[in-house]
Amino acid sequence: MKTLKTILKRVEPPHWWAGMGLKKLQLLFYGNNISEYNITCSSGLKILQVSQTENSNYLFVTLDASEIEGGTYSFTFQKENFPDFTIPYEFKERSGNSANRTSFDSSDVFYLLMPDRFANANPRINSVKQLIEKVNPNDLHGRHGGDIQGIINNLDYLKDLGITTLWSTPLCENNSSTGSYHGYAQTDVYNIDARLGSLADYKNLSKELHKRGMKLVIDYVTNHWGSEHWLIKDLPCKDWLNQWKHFTNTIHKTTSLFDTNASVFDKDQHEKGWFVSTMPDLNQRNPLVLNYLIQNAIWWIEEVNLDGIRVDTFTYNYKEAAVKWLEAIQNEYPNLNIIGEVWLHNSAQLAYWQKDSKIGEMASYNSQLPCVTDFPLHNALQDIFYSKHRKLKDLESLYETFVNDFFYPNPQGLMRFLENHDTQRFNTQCGGDLDAYKIALTVICTVRGIPQLYYGSEIGMQGDKNNGDGDIRHEFPGGWAKHKQNAFLPPTANKGRNVYQESFHAFTKKLLNWRKDNRTVHYGNFLHFVSVDHVYVYFRYLDEEKRVMVIINNSKTKKILALKKFAEGLNGSKTGNEILSDQVLDLSTELSMPARTPYIIELT
Amino acid sequence: MKTLKTILKRVEPPHWWAGMGLKKLQLLFYGNNISEYNITCSSGLKILQVSQTENSNYLFVTLDASEIEGGTYSFTFQKENFPDFTIPYEFKERSGNSANRTSFDSSDVFYLLMPDRFANANPRINSVKQLIEKVNPNDLHGRHGGDIQGIINNLDYLKDLGITTLWSTPLCENNSSTGSYHGYAQTDVYNIDARLGSLADYKNLSKELHKRGMKLVIDYVTNHWGSEHWLIKDLPCKDWLNQWKHFTNTIHKTTSLFDTNASVFDKDQHEKGWFVSTMPDLNQRNPLVLNYLIQNAIWWIEEVNLDGIRVDTFTYNYKEAAVKWLEAIQNEYPNLNIIGEVWLHNSAQLAYWQKDSKIGEMASYNSQLPCVTDFPLHNALQDIFYSKHRKLKDLESLYETFVNDFFYPNPQGLMRFLENHDTQRFNTQCGGDLDAYKIALTVICTVRGIPQLYYGSEIGMQGDKNNGDGDIRHEFPGGWAKHKQNAFLPPTANKGRNVYQESFHAFTKKLLNWRKDNRTVHYGNFLHFVSVDHVYVYFRYLDEEKRVMVIINNSKTKKILALKKFAEGLNGSKTGNEILSDQVLDLSTELSMPARTPYIIELT
Repeated sequence: MKTLKTILKRVEPPHWWAGMGLKKLQLLFYGNNISEYNITCSSGLKILQVSQTENSNYLFVTLDASEIEGGTYSFTFQKENFPDFTIPYEFKERSGNSANRTSFDSSDVFYLLMPDRFANANPRINSVKQLIEKVNPNDLHGRHGGDIQGIINNLDYLKDLGITTLWSTPLCENNSSTGSYHGYAQTDVYNIDARLGSLADYKNLSKELHKRGMKLVIDYVTNHWGSEHWLIKDLPCKDWLNQWKHFTNTIHKTTSLFDTNASVFDKDQHEKGWFVSTMPDLNQRNPLVLNYLIQNAIWWIEEVNLDGIRVDTFTYNYKEAAVKWLEAIQNEYPNLNIIGEVWLHNSAQLAYWQKDSKIGEMASYNSQLPCVTDFPLHNALQDIFYSKHRKLKDLESLYETFVNDFFYPNPQGLMRFLENHDTQRFNTQCGGDLDAYKIALTVICTVRGIPQLYYGSEIGMQGDKNNGDGDIRHEFPGGWAKHKQNAFLPPTANKGRNVYQESFHAFTKKLLNWRKDNRTVHYGNFLHFVSVDHVYVYFRYLDEEKRVMVIINNSKTKKILALKKFAEGLNGSKTGNEILSDQVLDLSTELSMPARTPYIIELT
Repeated sequence: MKTLKTILKRVEPPHWWAGMGLKKLQLLFYGNNISEYNITCSSGLKILQVSQTENSNYLFVTLDASEIEGGTYSFTFQKENFPDFTIPYEFKERSGNSANRTSFDSSDVFYLLMPDRFANANPRINSVKQLIEKVNPNDLHGRHGGDIQGIINNLDYLKDLGITTLWSTPLCENNSSTGSYHGYAQTDVYNIDARLGSLADYKNLSKELHKRGMKLVIDYVTNHWGSEHWLIKDLPCKDWLNQWKHFTNTIHKTTSLFDTNASVFDKDQHEKGWFVSTMPDLNQRNPLVLNYLIQNAIWWIEEVNLDGIRVDTFTYNYKEAAVKWLEAIQNEYPNLNIIGEVWLHNSAQLAYWQKDSKIGEMASYNSQLPCVTDFPLHNALQDIFYSKHRKLKDLESLYETFVNDFFYPNPQGLMRFLENHDTQRFNTQCGGDLDAYKIALTVICTVRGIPQLYYGSEIGMQGDKNNGDGDIRHEFPGGWAKHKQNAFLPPTANKGRNVYQESFHAFTKKLLNWRKDNRTVHYGNFLHFVSVDHVYVYFRYLDEEKRVMVIINNSKTKKILALKKFAEGLNGSKTGNEILSDQVLDLSTELSMPARTPYIIELT
């Protein structure tokens, strides 16, 4: 006779909480012919609906979750000629301020890292028995063995650097045979990948960050799972996925979702086409799927005490479902901030996707997404400083980027970045040019928005996307015991940062630590002047706070700036403290700007 | 003793009309110390206000024009110790339907020409005594002698070509010593330049166009006049112009006018800076100036019976005054259409400037300008077909242009063009490539909006902007008696079009004449498909009218198109008439598209 254990293989979510805002909880029971059982629950629970799908191995049970009290309840399964069986189900108590948790904002600086490539603290789990792909550090596209404990071990390094918020790429199980290291082809979204650590490790990461006054942001994928996901290998129903007769790739035409001229054919190819052949596209029109994704995200926030979400491939979702997903999460956590990956090169098109966008409103759409990725700025910076340009590029396109701030409902919700895990490495694009890095980092840290660094940016790390994504995701030097050099350590330490790395690091640390406490730069208004002859000048100002003047001189020669033109920004100030070079400047008439230099001046 | 004639040199407007919508009429009296006179008027007129300026040679008199009856009135000037004098002033009767005149729309095709360079009918006025610059056809930047009668003589040619609307560059007096031929440095905006003809000629042009069912659009300049303008040489007041201590060029930053980050310094440099040193910038904040410009435009519409306006350098005006100017004209003529030159490369920025723009609304601005120039499309076409590209460009940027139609309140109000009098000649940019011309012309004539040709486009005329503007403004061959060849005439005629010219002309004529009666293309909806492998497909559809399918194959090889993908556009049609090659096509399964060819298929 079959026992409970052999019949019921999964219950998801594995537990829930009392006192949540979510009115209805959808439980998934998975097991051999589980749908043939009659299900009842213990008192205190109320089943609203039991749904069966084409596949008898699934039972979806909707509970009234509006007034559940904490404690352990039970479900009983009954079938004629079979013995009944009962399983416990727990509703935990929430921690006090969970619903009102605060989140990241434009006072923060993000650090994006890929855990497999950052630091390897625990070699015992580099490979694990139950997961197919084993460690292979010689393969740029293989697993290298970094883990959650490796991140925890280096939090002091990040705090010292001036980072306030950690965004790690996904940590859930990716049990595919190749390319599993990046984490975006998830195969079990209720389990941490055992090669990265455990749920306890993830909770500990959260605790250790909070201990240091830092924040943790989860990288959440709503659009697709890995083809080896347990549920995809035994689909509850055909329409759990967007299915195609033959493999159909997305056409990467995000614009088709708002283009009023677009064909349904193209919209479908974009939204329902698969990201790659090993990432089946979730059909969020199916409410079972959408509820699953909503609850899973909330589960992680509540369980691990997270501070925010980054949503992967946001514009590849069914856009109306994405709204419901965001609304559900923001209903649960009204102050939680969320940033979506929106990979568009046109500011006005990008602005369509930000919450309360007037451009979205033109097409009766409100994404409910508070923050978006500023690819136009990324493009401008990588283009201006591209080392292979024959002639020095002017700063026009940089200026134009901020002209277009106008299109966004909230420019403070723009993530400003030089590079991320999917783009060319900035320091490769610019040939390791420290001056370029200084200027570009100054820009992303002093304009409105949320600066984001990518691990290794701060030590001038390079890697060429033309060699494949693995090349922009190298091991952080010092993250592995085998490394001959340790860039987590200062130059004075044994194996510490070399001269090149330290030159990047020192600048980054100085700038980020200054930014930490500067309310003007966090929340101030923006005022800029047309760039002239490779010099671009802007101001930040806020109430009675000190004004900040930023001057970028990207020319190869010194410039003498007549300051009268900037009176509107200077607002009467005749002196200022330049915080990168630690000098007091006379701003009464003119200013000498060294070649290829950024100045950040606190006006006095 | 001074007589009236020696004292009073000008009265503007020289006459007005009864029954106009304008409530107040501002008369300008100019003469030696005219402001020292007391002015009174005959009965039936009512003076509301008399304004003097710093310059005693001016008197501005505001009349109550709300209920004036037609007829001749008089003004009397009195001054102690001087004899009184009296002048007549006429209010004409309006022609019957003047206020409700219809205008151009997307059913029209514009032909832009520069009268000095189109056709010279009257060599006697190539130079005239009273105007400084004399004819000099050997100088690309000098006057060549074309005139209004030359246009009139070739209206049958234009009608036969399929043109419906004529836009001539300005015809008013330009009495400057050099570069006067282009007409944009006007020195008397109530007089036709005597080298182009007379007011009677202009009225005759209007009459001859209307006789042929064609329309006449005036090129109006609100932003600046020529430095030799009589009024600028004896300014009524310093603030008639935007004055600068030293000559200050506009910085050409139209975006500064809506950029919420922009400095007042930059906004002023853009708006109040002068277009060139010989074109003083009018200060439309001064109501005397604004009224002058409003009345002058209305005067020309009423006097010459015009069908529409093209506004030069629209975004260089004080933008709030531009609104008032447009409102006043549209109050007077509710159906009059107006297109403004808005030279921006970003569709969303461009959309800001169109009447009822949601993007404008974001910044609480409504330009009231119904139509704008589609420079993004112009750029895409000139770029795709640029003859010096090493590799064939795909059609992505063309597709993207129409994706961005979404930003405009009215895509039918976009002027779609390959070239104009300020850009590179399309046929130079593309190396005289007939296939490129065919494809590009097909696009501008079959998408939503108003196609605009530039004189000579239709005969493959070339000219390189890099040699200066004169080189893109050559004499139309056949416009001068001296020409050895006459492209106004068919190849069969003596001196008629050569083979190259005829190949362009025949295609243009065929396409434009087909377009004339096609309501689907005039007013239909637009549906397009992502361009794939150098093939771009779109449809136009409207109610019960025949659908139109356009296929662009820009590749160098034949393409077999599987048509199933386009079912949404085909809407059940299995056959169609291709109107450029005059063939009936089977559309049931697939279609063979010749290399580098446009197809326009009326679905049956």
